[in-house]
Amino acid sequence: MECAVLFSGGKDSTLAALLLESVYDVTLVTGQFGITDVAGHAREAADAIDFPMATVDLDREVAAAAVEQMVADGYPREGIQQVHEHALEVVAGLDYDAIADGTRRDDRVPTVTRPAAQSLEDRHGVDYLAPLAGFGRGAIDDLVAQLLVVEAGPSDAIAKADYETELRALIADRYGADRVADIFPAHTQTRVRGLR
Amino acid sequence: MECAVLFSGGKDSTLAALLLESVYDVTLVTGQFGITDVAGHAREAADAIDFPMATVDLDREVAAAAVEQMVADGYPREGIQQVHEHALEVVAGLDYDAIADGTRRDDRVPTVTRPAAQSLEDRHGVDYLAPLAGFGRGAIDDLVAQLLVVEAGPSDAIAKADYETELRALIADRYGADRVADIFPAHTQTRVRGLR
Repeated sequence: MECAVLFSGGKDSTLAALLLESVYDVTLVTGQFGITDVAGHAREAADAIDFPMATVDLDREVAAAAVEQMVADGYPREGIQQVHEHALEVVAGLDYDAIADGTRRDDRVPTVTRPAAQSLEDRHGVDYLAPLAGFGRGAIDDLVAQLLVVEAGPSDAIAKADYETELRALIADRYGADRVADIFPAHTQTRVRGLR
Repeated sequence: MECAVLFSGGKDSTLAALLLESVYDVTLVTGQFGITDVAGHAREAADAIDFPMATVDLDREVAAAAVEQMVADGYPREGIQQVHEHALEVVAGLDYDAIADGTRRDDRVPTVTRPAAQSLEDRHGVDYLAPLAGFGRGAIDDLVAQLLVVEAGPSDAIAKADYETELRALIADRYGADRVADIFPAHTQTRVRGLR
């Protein structure tokens, strides 16, 4: 069975792919708004862990609405959630048997509730999988240490293929770099550089 | 890393083991009260899917209390939950890096809440994994069809290595066979006979 794993080049989506590959033919799928070079970063990360990879175009209007939401809120949570739901809808409309993401037990955002998952599955005739939904922080940290080579750094310095990178760029373009720092508190990002 | 997967010989715990084997050294662990030949059924099922397997003794007093609960309730839910929590505690006390079960997104029982999972992890210094927590019924059915040879039949005719089999026997012994049928409505059970 063919499974598309939403891929950001980070550790969660990489671990999701590694868990699923024993039972699915996994393709990493990266959504791009076309704001930054998401495709290039995703390709590099996918090559490093040796998975096939594809990109899918996301709707620029969704990015614009998410950015307005974030600027109004002063924090990124709701905007990220909106973009993730959009990406799931787009990938669910492609020709895979299953779609998956890297959402974890302890994640606050993005989240996919049980009714939202069921609705996605029913409307698109696809299975939605969250292989890390039953994994806590300790398990993730142990798996990363065991399986992955990662590069960690400040969130404004690590170029990933995730929504945040493109949304930050859009906010910087429209509202200035200071606004980005207001909305996204400094945090550590990790990017996967390879398998151990 | 060594992971113990709580194993009943059914499809859920088998799929949990198959998902985890790409990233863990999996041992199937079957809890037994010593009421029926759980170890024999578990060994047969484990051999059929080619995983190493161990048994662990559960506390007969927990079985007795669960049966009292079920008889008082007239349904099995709370009793099964108590036994599952006991089994997790026992296996968490063994020498594995991680323990896992086959609980699914849509399961009503047994369930392991996020705080319960965190508590188990903190007290025992172990990772608790629920690899199917992010899988719905459709995904499970698709995986079973793709990967497993299963035998299905009425729940009183399929001998599995699960809690239900032993608790049914204990109820029959103490309260008679009719009481078993009252408490456990007739349902279809599946037993895994091999891999496709």
